[in-house]
Amino acid sequence: MNIVNGGITAATGFKAACCEANIKYKNRTDMAMVYCDVPCECAGTFTTNVVKAACVQWDQKIVYSGKPMQAVVVNSGIANACTGKEGFDACEATAKAVENALGVPFDCVAVASTGVIGMQLPVEKLVNGVTMMSKALNDSIEAGTNASKAIMTTDTVNKEIAVTFTISGKTVTLGGMSKGSGMIHPNMCTMLAFLSTDIAIDKALLQEALSDVVKDTFNMITVDGDTSTNDTLLIMANGLAENNKITEKNDDYNTFCEALKFVCEYLAKKMAADGEGASKLFEAKVVNAKSKEDARTLSRAIVASNLSKAAIYGCDANFGRFLCAMGYSGADFDQNDVELFFESDAGKLQVFDKGTPIVFDEELAVKILKSKAVTIYVDMHEGNQEATAWGCDLTYDYVKINADYRS
Amino acid sequence: MNIVNGGITAATGFKAACCEANIKYKNRTDMAMVYCDVPCECAGTFTTNVVKAACVQWDQKIVYSGKPMQAVVVNSGIANACTGKEGFDACEATAKAVENALGVPFDCVAVASTGVIGMQLPVEKLVNGVTMMSKALNDSIEAGTNASKAIMTTDTVNKEIAVTFTISGKTVTLGGMSKGSGMIHPNMCTMLAFLSTDIAIDKALLQEALSDVVKDTFNMITVDGDTSTNDTLLIMANGLAENNKITEKNDDYNTFCEALKFVCEYLAKKMAADGEGASKLFEAKVVNAKSKEDARTLSRAIVASNLSKAAIYGCDANFGRFLCAMGYSGADFDQNDVELFFESDAGKLQVFDKGTPIVFDEELAVKILKSKAVTIYVDMHEGNQEATAWGCDLTYDYVKINADYRS
Repeated sequence: MNIVNGGITAATGFKAACCEANIKYKNRTDMAMVYCDVPCECAGTFTTNVVKAACVQWDQKIVYSGKPMQAVVVNSGIANACTGKEGFDACEATAKAVENALGVPFDCVAVASTGVIGMQLPVEKLVNGVTMMSKALNDSIEAGTNASKAIMTTDTVNKEIAVTFTISGKTVTLGGMSKGSGMIHPNMCTMLAFLSTDIAIDKALLQEALSDVVKDTFNMITVDGDTSTNDTLLIMANGLAENNKITEKNDDYNTFCEALKFVCEYLAKKMAADGEGASKLFEAKVVNAKSKEDARTLSRAIVASNLSKAAIYGCDANFGRFLCAMGYSGADFDQNDVELFFESDAGKLQVFDKGTPIVFDEELAVKILKSKAVTIYVDMHEGNQEATAWGCDLTYDYVKINADYRS
Repeated sequence: MNIVNGGITAATGFKAACCEANIKYKNRTDMAMVYCDVPCECAGTFTTNVVKAACVQWDQKIVYSGKPMQAVVVNSGIANACTGKEGFDACEATAKAVENALGVPFDCVAVASTGVIGMQLPVEKLVNGVTMMSKALNDSIEAGTNASKAIMTTDTVNKEIAVTFTISGKTVTLGGMSKGSGMIHPNMCTMLAFLSTDIAIDKALLQEALSDVVKDTFNMITVDGDTSTNDTLLIMANGLAENNKITEKNDDYNTFCEALKFVCEYLAKKMAADGEGASKLFEAKVVNAKSKEDARTLSRAIVASNLSKAAIYGCDANFGRFLCAMGYSGADFDQNDVELFFESDAGKLQVFDKGTPIVFDEELAVKILKSKAVTIYVDMHEGNQEATAWGCDLTYDYVKINADYRS
């Protein structure tokens, strides 16, 4: 597998565009579009929040119906959640604008939104945006990068990646982009992310691969414990790589899953590190747990805890907070089995040894915690399953960003 | 029922003392003791955290064994959690010091701790503290108030209350004190709280009353979603009010439960409003839910959400965040049934009407949100059950307090 330049337009056949639709932001792009000349197999995972945005419900219909997907239209100003019938009408109007401009059936057009909840979208601006973008579609790397910038909200960096790998002698490309900085908590997937690939694969296997991979990637990140109403992860596969179509779980399928996991983990970690107000990436790795589910639960609890996150921000080696979070996570364990370490590029330091605190080198602890990426490494000594979760520290800026988000 | 002066020493027969034991803090009291000349029936509820502090396990033994309780010793410097066998030895040494000083059996002495996790207690200082306090025990209101101050950590105000009520012609008193400001999240009870009463009541009924009342009071508050390792709520009842002993669920039992609920709700709200860094009390009231459990889940999710808490701090009428939190809470509902209001002493304002956002008066919304106590009032229109949860806003000071708690 090779990492290559680009993102959503890296795979053969995919084009992108963006525009300034002035939906909420001024003087910046706030709409993006991804398009493929040929119909694509698609798969998706969506928020588990009971309060689902109109666009989530729209996209679920396409993914679950078995219809192909040919385009995705995104806006980053208004979430189109809690908007009643008017919200659905906005989805339909957007998709129909794509049909008018490009001749693809409106029910093959996904829509996605991120931004303020509880406000109605300005439909005319959306439709104008679609018209503009339909004329500007381009398969260049730059077009993909610009699209990844247009979908940002409180993100401070754009997130995109592409890889190539070989299936039945053919080079296959998989690329993607994502956004997400606040209202991020793993439960299905908690952000917007779009993947495109030229692989030929059965729809059912595409969905299975995506659903599997999301559990250890996007579902393992958290910024603030708030599972959004809008989380959407979509993948489109157009088959233009001309590999032997994957129709069973063979070596080719495994090769694809490996690339998919790499891309999803890259985008997920990038989102965690760019959490609202974050000054560093905060990783929890739990090994030798009784079950995979326990390992996930424990590692997620550590990075989700406000007190843990504040300690990481303050470089305070207050390891009791991580044990406390593990204790209320819902996973059952005996603290007398547990070893806990701080780890970063500055070193690794054990602080808790099977029920008993260790008198440790405070200076080294602070040095480790001052790194831009800090890992809490926990050995449960109760089984052989492991999981890693990613989050960020809790800072003044998180409060600042969210105390006046609307204004 | 009448509110009277005092707290833990208000009921007949209870004495308190405190001292400067220099366990963590300097130049302030950091140990407290509550004592009763006669053995008391006792009941307790404890943290559900798997990682339970040594003192929690010590107290559980007393409460579950059916033994009477005669004294409680508290320190507010070190939590005695994650401390292995040495931690248990510290509990025993403390209890035995009470036995030596006052002649009560050491297995009738509860101990409680709050403070840093993962550090060992200085046993000699604890034992000296017990010796000092044993000589200073006093049944005055002032002694109770001073004890309530000695158990504070990051609390900014002490919390105590007392009420009297009549049972079978006798005046009964119930008083209590509590502490708690950070690592507060409802799951059993999430703080230290001690109640004393002179009522005569069966132990089993005392426990049942306490377990019932905790569900709608202490378990309905949250500061940061972090369920502590040390949460302990204890009640001692010495029977000195000489009422006909309560041995069944009659009117007398109900009168007692009502007083107990009043006292617990008062202390719980006081803790929520004094959450670390809090600038205001944040209440969520959910009415007409399908079930009591749903009502509790929904109201707790609203006050637990970081994004909701930040919006309350910033007086940002961003109501979508409350709906979002309800949506991921785990309770099932249809957003098209829901009405949502902002409420405070400045007025009441509807912002969401059964699936559709309302164009509301932003100026009035800000006025309402600027109050010292703000309520999110939600009518589910799906049943007839209700619940109220209490929390606080998320401020810069929360981050500040927790970024360097240990140092």
